[in-house]
Amino acid sequence: MEFKVNSKVLEKLLSRIIPAIPNRTPMPILENFLFDIKDGLMMVSATDLEISLRSSINVPSDENLKMVIPARLLYDIIRTLDETQITFSTVAGSKLKLTTDNGIYNIGYTSSEDFPEIHSVTRDKEVVINGLDLKKALDQTSFAMSKEDMRPAMTGTLFEFSQEGLRFVSTDGHRLVKFVNKNITSEAEEQYIVPERAISVLSKLLNDTDVKIYLSKSHISFQISELEFISRLIGEKYPAYSSVIPLENENRLFINRLDLNSSIRRMMLFSSSSSKQVKLSLSNNKIEVSAEDIDHGSDAVENIDCKYDGDTMDIGFNTAYVNDILSHVDEDNIIFKLHSPTKACIIEPETAAENEELMLLLMPVRLNN
Amino acid sequence: MEFKVNSKVLEKLLSRIIPAIPNRTPMPILENFLFDIKDGLMMVSATDLEISLRSSINVPSDENLKMVIPARLLYDIIRTLDETQITFSTVAGSKLKLTTDNGIYNIGYTSSEDFPEIHSVTRDKEVVINGLDLKKALDQTSFAMSKEDMRPAMTGTLFEFSQEGLRFVSTDGHRLVKFVNKNITSEAEEQYIVPERAISVLSKLLNDTDVKIYLSKSHISFQISELEFISRLIGEKYPAYSSVIPLENENRLFINRLDLNSSIRRMMLFSSSSSKQVKLSLSNNKIEVSAEDIDHGSDAVENIDCKYDGDTMDIGFNTAYVNDILSHVDEDNIIFKLHSPTKACIIEPETAAENEELMLLLMPVRLNN
Repeated sequence: MEFKVNSKVLEKLLSRIIPAIPNRTPMPILENFLFDIKDGLMMVSATDLEISLRSSINVPSDENLKMVIPARLLYDIIRTLDETQITFSTVAGSKLKLTTDNGIYNIGYTSSEDFPEIHSVTRDKEVVINGLDLKKALDQTSFAMSKEDMRPAMTGTLFEFSQEGLRFVSTDGHRLVKFVNKNITSEAEEQYIVPERAISVLSKLLNDTDVKIYLSKSHISFQISELEFISRLIGEKYPAYSSVIPLENENRLFINRLDLNSSIRRMMLFSSSSSKQVKLSLSNNKIEVSAEDIDHGSDAVENIDCKYDGDTMDIGFNTAYVNDILSHVDEDNIIFKLHSPTKACIIEPETAAENEELMLLLMPVRLNN
Repeated sequence: MEFKVNSKVLEKLLSRIIPAIPNRTPMPILENFLFDIKDGLMMVSATDLEISLRSSINVPSDENLKMVIPARLLYDIIRTLDETQITFSTVAGSKLKLTTDNGIYNIGYTSSEDFPEIHSVTRDKEVVINGLDLKKALDQTSFAMSKEDMRPAMTGTLFEFSQEGLRFVSTDGHRLVKFVNKNITSEAEEQYIVPERAISVLSKLLNDTDVKIYLSKSHISFQISELEFISRLIGEKYPAYSSVIPLENENRLFINRLDLNSSIRRMMLFSSSSSKQVKLSLSNNKIEVSAEDIDHGSDAVENIDCKYDGDTMDIGFNTAYVNDILSHVDEDNIIFKLHSPTKACIIEPETAAENEELMLLLMPVRLNN
């Protein structure tokens, strides 16, 4: 076998596949690329058994061959080379030999027998979404996924197809985010839960290119130009999240997101490390934000400009969650919709982008007086 | 006590002092700033017992007071505030109260009794050096300091005053760097060893401002505008480094530093993790760089353009040390001065900057054939 490939073309290909290589694994074979050279096409794949990536380029090879090649070693060689032509050949059926004008590199390869098969998703049902729209949906929701394994469904992000649109939902029980892309409508209501690692890798692969999504019961596939990204789904039932969203929160607080977040960040310095609590004291067109660290004898209080004509109330939140939520809204003017200090609070941008809807829900904490 | 200070002025002051606050310490008092307000001047100090930083600003205070204030808490509050006037006052002799237009922050402070005294260096002998010249000297030499405590002198950088100039020397026994600033001459030969932590903090504080250096037997002080940086010295004898520098290395290799370093970085991928060895094979106007990882059955060889008319030889080096050295020379054209595969090799820039001298020495490793 012998063929030539441009170093920069190969570098670009490998850079898109390598995110599927696990950092640590008890299965050393997963630290490899699978090269499948067949009829002039070279398909490069990688998998960590949960997610897989594959893409191909044309290579003028005279022979078909499958081989398993150490991923980081190959990628690191290729990306440190200046642009050059690389000749690939094999030596004695066990070494891959790369030859450039100035150098020769021999790398041991192994046979492909033990490389896990990558699940293929049938292309019966195709959903097309712009890459940046998908990225926005993931970036705005995924931060609220649960980090705890107790309820596996909540460790992923819900993709919910509906007549209203494609809903993205994540929650860890303390807060919940729902983002709706109203351009992608579907007659049937269908739920798919995509795991955390898939969301984080996928988000980095997305750009302005349209993405084709294919679905099966167990897997989801994203086709991004030549690149295919496949993830297993979490086979659990997602919690009935609609029932926790309050319908009537009659007290409305209009506030600048950046002003409030700047204040919350200072309150994080004062809220005690055990409770992480911040108190919002609301009265007529007035909000007072305060925190106290009893252990260190420090406290802080700030007033922020706002518009509010609802009930006077003191409500407590976890500073870290408020900071998380405020950091993941794009709009600068936001509304807090409140009912009482013990009921869930809804946070929304004052104006939503066209054909989008964003809703964040935050559970209050009991104030210790 | 009550006075006002601009938040950005205070932020700038604290940002220059906080590098002396240790990240972890068994002495909690070192996590504080010492504020010493006296006759309208506020001196802010911090120390980790090895290095100290202090600087002052004028404050229109009616009273003198010393207090010890949690450093990170205060700094984090100040730097997250927009520019504003802050009123400092004390409450009940135990709390510092900061008041702005929108907020009030109370921080517990403690008395200054237990705060360690910061060593003052007498101003008998003053050496003036431009900040960027000093930074260059430190950046080019300090990487070669020893990380091992076996020989304490080698864990610091030597400042050697001499008639030739001010020499900066560091070595870990495997490599040695000597940088000479010929503008700073001194009649007496004097040696001072500055510890690693001082070098790394100092390097970040330096800018185009002239620096005044003061010296005592035990301490060194750097005055950078309003800021004073004090470090203890390592009270040991520096090894007689001159005796290891070979005088006659008659074989000269002229090579482009970037070409060689690019190649060495690839060889690091192939050199086995135990030996980290790279082989340089030199013959007439030819250099072949090669490495082999027996454990993984991989190997590499590259040819690089060079000028060489010395003895034919194979010489081995530790890839990490070669990479370190090549990364810390500014000049692109360098000379390797060699004698034999078992003798120290000298690396120098082909042309040195005016009034400067840079010499790097690297010990070869025995090639395993």
